[in-house]
Amino acid sequence: MSDSKGKTRKEVLEALEAEAKQVLAAIEDMKNPKLKIPLRTLTNVYFDAKAKMIKLGDKEGTRTFYNVGQAKKFMQTMLIAAQLKSLILQDAPTLGTRQLFYLLRGTMPDSDEDKFDEQEESDAIIEDIEVMIDALREELGLIAVPKGVLAGPILIEDLKTGDVLDFTKFGTAGGSVPASVEPDTFKFKKCTADYILVVEKYEVWNLLNQQRYWEKNNCLLMTGKGQPARAERRLLSRFEKELKLPIYVFADLDVYGYYIYSVYKQGSINLAFFSEKAAAPSAKYIGFSVDDYKTFKLPKTALIKMAEDDFKRIKEVKAYEWFKSKEWQQELDKLEKFGYSVESDALVAKSIDFTAKVYLPTKIKNKDWLD
Amino acid sequence: MSDSKGKTRKEVLEALEAEAKQVLAAIEDMKNPKLKIPLRTLTNVYFDAKAKMIKLGDKEGTRTFYNVGQAKKFMQTMLIAAQLKSLILQDAPTLGTRQLFYLLRGTMPDSDEDKFDEQEESDAIIEDIEVMIDALREELGLIAVPKGVLAGPILIEDLKTGDVLDFTKFGTAGGSVPASVEPDTFKFKKCTADYILVVEKYEVWNLLNQQRYWEKNNCLLMTGKGQPARAERRLLSRFEKELKLPIYVFADLDVYGYYIYSVYKQGSINLAFFSEKAAAPSAKYIGFSVDDYKTFKLPKTALIKMAEDDFKRIKEVKAYEWFKSKEWQQELDKLEKFGYSVESDALVAKSIDFTAKVYLPTKIKNKDWLD
Repeated sequence: MSDSKGKTRKEVLEALEAEAKQVLAAIEDMKNPKLKIPLRTLTNVYFDAKAKMIKLGDKEGTRTFYNVGQAKKFMQTMLIAAQLKSLILQDAPTLGTRQLFYLLRGTMPDSDEDKFDEQEESDAIIEDIEVMIDALREELGLIAVPKGVLAGPILIEDLKTGDVLDFTKFGTAGGSVPASVEPDTFKFKKCTADYILVVEKYEVWNLLNQQRYWEKNNCLLMTGKGQPARAERRLLSRFEKELKLPIYVFADLDVYGYYIYSVYKQGSINLAFFSEKAAAPSAKYIGFSVDDYKTFKLPKTALIKMAEDDFKRIKEVKAYEWFKSKEWQQELDKLEKFGYSVESDALVAKSIDFTAKVYLPTKIKNKDWLD
Repeated sequence: MSDSKGKTRKEVLEALEAEAKQVLAAIEDMKNPKLKIPLRTLTNVYFDAKAKMIKLGDKEGTRTFYNVGQAKKFMQTMLIAAQLKSLILQDAPTLGTRQLFYLLRGTMPDSDEDKFDEQEESDAIIEDIEVMIDALREELGLIAVPKGVLAGPILIEDLKTGDVLDFTKFGTAGGSVPASVEPDTFKFKKCTADYILVVEKYEVWNLLNQQRYWEKNNCLLMTGKGQPARAERRLLSRFEKELKLPIYVFADLDVYGYYIYSVYKQGSINLAFFSEKAAAPSAKYIGFSVDDYKTFKLPKTALIKMAEDDFKRIKEVKAYEWFKSKEWQQELDKLEKFGYSVESDALVAKSIDFTAKVYLPTKIKNKDWLD
């Protein structure tokens, strides 16, 4: 299988060293050392309608050493870059950002000046380094806590341990998504699935998994347990690029379900840099949609009256660039007019088998989705 | 391996039917049908110092049908019991409590009276039924979302799917804890571990798992990712009863870490009924403890100054019955005097290998723990 784009540890090292060398060269030339860092501010985030993903623009900031307002941040950037380089050279285990913070704490040599006071400082600079050298924190050896589980016909080799994970053999638990799903450690060996189904809620995943939905429909079945963590988003993005399979997202019919779908598909504003590498722009919204309520003759007991906040949130989501397509604007209008949400859990009101045996297969067969 | 106490599906059915039959008999005798339900109120919760766990007392409430204030709840109790019976008879998949709520919604036959307005109503009655027939919701076929991961030398058979899970073969991800870990579906086949180490934080688990701590120290390594969900607590309790291995909990040195340890060990007040079946009273607090800071010569950079709320919380925890032992009162006094917390993540400040190679083995070898 073809590899997803991603930097190897060697390429990350080279990128970190290149920055350090140009800083050193500036010092030797008696120039003000500087780092060019793409801006992570909202003004530099845009929706690329063609690529269908949220991206970081090309505005850059300059962080210089001889600048009272920037000297500390400049120093912190160099400290973190050096620490990350050292960890890579040691072939150290992946660490959480809080663990990294503890590695970095302390005062500067021969000084009472604290390197870092709060984790917020080191977290912000980790993101600066990610964009500066164009590498995800996972490629830098840092992790966030994963949440998801996965079942279905895929073999993945964990190159760190040599274990080959067969996601058809993990029972009712499913296989857990590891914190780092980068290609250099988490290698897709074989996948015979026809498509990938991502469900918003664990309880729905749990039901479908017990009904062997992935086996009967030959697909991968994943959940990020609500709002997904980084690992599930990155994994889905790799699935799209490397397995080239259709991806369907099944979420609640409410504006929060729509939004979770959009996070999987296009990414999110506050992690725009990550979004480019974690988006799955081909993902379709399989449901639940407003029209489904009538089409599938759901009982009234599946309905929950929307609250004022839900209507407000519809207006906000309608204004996002990535919901501007005609079909999504119509869907949002319909939801507003409908005035009810239908949670994906609610489909059991029709019958316990309904989601697995009728709803999902019909929707997929009829290509009845939103893009 | 000997089985943990736990009702089989057949026993649960019989218990539900016994309640229904005594209600029917009362109706036939022209008596007021009633249900006796152990009280779940705080006044009926106590700490059993000998068993070392939080328990529900023997106070009972009576719910009768011919009582204006109780008729609706009586009816709801019968509706849920009937629904649960039906699910068991169908051999239905396990469901979340929200899914059960959707199965139960609607109006009574020939009436405009709603059976349930909010999930809070059905959730409360699920707990009533749990205590009434002395069965966990998991034994009734209901689940909560699990969080944890596990690694180490244990083979568990998932009797629902037939898969045998080898927790030494799950790579950097570890094996996920399923939503239901009851003996009738999740059977311990073989375990060669010497002890069980539960770590509070995922990041610490992730580090130890990469360092193959469980392999080098022949133990099971589990995390509930902070405050554990029901499944991890119940699993640890089964480990204690069936595997009869020592259990050590490694958490942050702060009052929240102490408390998470106590939840694993003795349970919690608001789930007192569950606590009896999910407690692991032999669990020891392996650290981090106040004395460890000096003993292991940790750097100052591992310290975080406690805030006012932390001091307040110490006073609250000191007052809990299950923290009344001399050694815990001393530890809490020491922490108050110390005035700093030491997060388990912070041990990397000593070295990345320190937790796995020095700290934990030394503590366990010296039996240096709090009970």
